Amino acid sequence: MLIHHHTREVEWGDCDPAGIVFHPRYLAYFDHCTNLLFTQAGFEPATLQARFGVIGYPVVGLRTRFHAPCCYGDKVCIETRILEFRNSSFEVQHVLKRGDTLAVEAEVTRVWAGRHAEEPRRMQGRTIPEEVKVAMG
Amino acid sequence: MLIHHHTREVEWGDCDPAGIVFHPRYLAYFDHCTNLLFTQAGFEPATLQARFGVIGYPVVGLRTRFHAPCCYGDKVCIETRILEFRNSSFEVQHVLKRGDTLAVEAEVTRVWAGRHAEEPRRMQGRTIPEEVKVAMG
Amino acid sequence: MLIHHHTREVEWGDCDPAGIVFHPRYLAYFDHCTNLLFTQAGFEPATLQARFGVIGYPVVGLRTRFHAPCCYGDKVCIETRILEFRNSSFEVQHVLKRGDTLAVEAEVTRVWAGRHAEEPRRMQGRTIPEEVKVAMG
Amino acid sequence: MLIHHHTREVEWGDCDPAGIVFHPRYLAYFDHCTNLLFTQAGFEPATLQARFGVIGYPVVGLRTRFHAPCCYGDKVCIETRILEFRNSSFEVQHVLKRGDTLAVEAEVTRVWAGRHAEEPRRMQGRTIPEEVKVAMG
Repeated sequence: MLIHHHTREVEWGDCDPAGIVFHPRYLAYFDHCTNLLFTQAGFEPATLQARFGVIGYPVVGLRTRFHAPCCYGDKVCIETRILEFRNSSFEVQHVLKRGDTLAVEAEVTRVWAGRHAEEPRRMQGRTIPEEVKVAMG
Repeated sequence: MLIHHHTREVEWGDCDPAGIVFHPRYLAYFDHCTNLLFTQAGFEPATLQARFGVIGYPVVGLRTRFHAPCCYGDKVCIETRILEFRNSSFEVQHVLKRGDTLAVEAEVTRVWAGRHAEEPRRMQGRTIPEEVKVAMG
Repeated sequence: MLIHHHTREVEWGDCDPAGIVFHPRYLAYFDHCTNLLFTQAGFEPATLQARFGVIGYPVVGLRTRFHAPCCYGDKVCIETRILEFRNSSFEVQHVLKRGDTLAVEAEVTRVWAGRHAEEPRRMQGRTIPEEVKVAMG
Repeated sequence: MLIHHHTREVEWGDCDPAGIVFHPRYLAYFDHCTNLLFTQAGFEPATLQARFGVIGYPVVGLRTRFHAPCCYGDKVCIETRILEFRNSSFEVQHVLKRGDTLAVEAEVTRVWAGRHAEEPRRMQGRTIPEEVKVAMG
């Protein structure tokens, strides 16, 4: 199973007046990690439309636990993997550690989605290609 | 039970290249709504340290479902309420609608927290005062 | 001359560990104000492509002075006006006050821009329609 | 003269519906680069209070030119240096390139600042220590 490891430094602008990472920023970190995982597997987000006719894999659900705060300057390591592929959706897991400390965990449900034929603002799940499942599963 | 209604307009900078709100931004909206709910109840976040010896109510968990995308210029209405008070934690519910369309739902678990005596970076749950429970429950 | 007044409350997530607004957030506020000014004048950003063949008015330069910090919960008022229209660019002025205190001033240069015919990533200045100049000037 | 080089990848969440980096995000990049420059010189932002009695170096002015847009996935390189030290303020220059293309330039004026004795929300310029000027100048 493909796992992506991403290391980054918590930036001043990621933190709030309590001096800790403003929690929505973790979700932005995780979103980036998902893109890096797909890129690592050879599925650059920018190429998905041309290759598979989908605009991306928007988030439809997420669950997160925040175990320990992170602060400006902390080096954090995020491990990202696909937990499960279903027909048109999949589950991504992110585990963020600060040194040995488990700081944040998340499971994010995403849909393999194209634009709805009649209503361009709506998206529609599409069957995830075997090629994608095999490369990342 | 106290309910806070917040209306806001989706800004250009809230949206991503797919033209829809970048999902972490919804969590930032909801964070603001929680502060507005406490303010409405008479518990201005900035006064909590002086009145109750806590630095705030950091998020320890959240679950969200994204049902329909929102775009630049959309007027969205967010309804925020406390679902449950426990001893030192509580559950906040946010329901975001675009017109009559249910777009995003979230339940956020927060802890009534002071700074840990020996390790200022760590936070520690404190008993939620009856006064707060009564005013908001 | 058209002036747009926008009032907003500084959010927790807009502020940094020093307890003050993280300065890039002011630029996001101002960007939104420019869109509101165009909307007020009848030129909804989303309609520009269809009406005028431009994708928008990207920023090509800005100058800002930060006179006084703003904090979480501050109500700020932003006054936005066009200082000058040139052939394909224009100058927007933003003045942000906290009560009577002048907090931030900015002049932002924007270009009335369409996509470059051969390189879609590049943008190209277009002549600003008289109709726009008259309505906003 | 000390120069800091920072390479980063443009993230999906940094970009707007036009598909390009939302311009305030560049200012957040630059803010981080300034912190990295000070850290490289041995002046970790978190240590400034204890060592020099200042809370940091807030921005009081900035000028930016945006020459070329950057998109999701672009690798950008930012060069950061101090242009000039004055008594209590200094000028930081940032040059951001995408490959060989000059994309963004900025000059940022910052103040070496402590908290005002009577009004903690206000900041006050302090004389920049020779040690800092020598190490970075």
